[in-house]
Amino acid sequence: MANPPLILVTNDDGITAPGIRSLIEIMNKIGKVVVVAPEFPQSGMGHAITINSTLQCFKIKIDDGPQIEYRCSGTPTDCIKLAVNELLERKPDICVAGINHGSNSSINVIYSGTMSAAIEAGIEGVPAIGFSLLDHRWRANFDPFKSSIESITKSALKNGIPKNVVLNVNLPKVDNHKDIRGIKICRQAEASWMEEFDKRTNPMGKKYYWLTGKFINKDNGQDTDEWALSKKYISIVPVQYDLTAHTVIKELKTWHFE
Amino acid sequence: MANPPLILVTNDDGITAPGIRSLIEIMNKIGKVVVVAPEFPQSGMGHAITINSTLQCFKIKIDDGPQIEYRCSGTPTDCIKLAVNELLERKPDICVAGINHGSNSSINVIYSGTMSAAIEAGIEGVPAIGFSLLDHRWRANFDPFKSSIESITKSALKNGIPKNVVLNVNLPKVDNHKDIRGIKICRQAEASWMEEFDKRTNPMGKKYYWLTGKFINKDNGQDTDEWALSKKYISIVPVQYDLTAHTVIKELKTWHFE
Repeated sequence: MANPPLILVTNDDGITAPGIRSLIEIMNKIGKVVVVAPEFPQSGMGHAITINSTLQCFKIKIDDGPQIEYRCSGTPTDCIKLAVNELLERKPDICVAGINHGSNSSINVIYSGTMSAAIEAGIEGVPAIGFSLLDHRWRANFDPFKSSIESITKSALKNGIPKNVVLNVNLPKVDNHKDIRGIKICRQAEASWMEEFDKRTNPMGKKYYWLTGKFINKDNGQDTDEWALSKKYISIVPVQYDLTAHTVIKELKTWHFE
Repeated sequence: MANPPLILVTNDDGITAPGIRSLIEIMNKIGKVVVVAPEFPQSGMGHAITINSTLQCFKIKIDDGPQIEYRCSGTPTDCIKLAVNELLERKPDICVAGINHGSNSSINVIYSGTMSAAIEAGIEGVPAIGFSLLDHRWRANFDPFKSSIESITKSALKNGIPKNVVLNVNLPKVDNHKDIRGIKICRQAEASWMEEFDKRTNPMGKKYYWLTGKFINKDNGQDTDEWALSKKYISIVPVQYDLTAHTVIKELKTWHFE
């Protein structure tokens, strides 16, 4: 690893979001920072990529930090592909995504543009971490987490993130650093969203829907991210992108196809 | 399970794509079919959901089959959420997505709207299968696969798909049914895309990009989907949405956070 390390920063809330501005500030203390982030919010974009339209990407100066920044018209996954394959002179030593305004614990990892950016970096061979705070407000308070985020990133640089894995870090909502009880390595809780569509009629008389829903945690385990966060721990879940359910291959091999 | 079973059909290529029209025809032989599919192509949308704008969904009649059909303005994942939570009178017995015009083997599972629809169905507690043909052309020939798709779907209804798992079925490009060598249960091959951005200048003098790339299979295993497909087998990979890399939790617990 180079000294200082080259750090790629992205998010899904857009390049001007307070969460990414905090993350940039923390990363400037650790290494040389390049930001490639969406120009507009891209929450809930999952692992979407732009294949049927074009991408634009321009250098931008937002504040006085030493980081180099690009705003990109695409999704978080597009940002990583553009950064690693087009914009950066060499492969970054680490990619950090976030700080997301809102939780990406449990099943939310699947819908999250922030975590998909981290996963895309992993696929491209770049160690990666996604950070998310359990507070979706634009004016969420990121200050209590700065030292923990610095410590987790430095640990990842020192130890090396295991192969084919990225880290999903979620931060409990607390007002002060001293209220964080510690860091727990967890598994993803089994949970899902119970959708409730808000059905309305537009001025032309046509029906439309807003997607709303309630988060349902079906998992009582004390080794899950949901449990840790409810107890005010920071949760770290190692996330893989080999989606194979290896344990059921044997069962499926007993199926008889007519 | 009800007799006949209630079958939910979707895709990411759009409701008029020949792939989904073939799938509907096959499913009409097995059960009562309801189609909820995107009105426009949504390839590469991954697990995107529509949270910052509205959704529209209308009944539509496309051909003479007995199926009920809805076209939806959203992503494949939106279609499943709308179908299960708003449009259908009861939970379907199975959800089938596809037939995708193009491969969703290996790492492509992560970018695929078709597979994300199947995964979303799984999360909602509906057994689900995604079907994809290794031919991205609009006029791809789906006929050689009709009996295999019927057989795989019937087997899934009979045996029950294991909990928290959906099936990713990829079909090799062949001209005749007799050229298919059989069905293999596989793991996802380790592979990635090597991106090459096609950089252009627009009429206003601004730079823009098209995402292009080359698929790189790094996996020599003979138990992978890529291997099976290269030998003209149909591949079935069981896919899970618990993304936890359980095997590295122990290693991460040895990390010391300053």
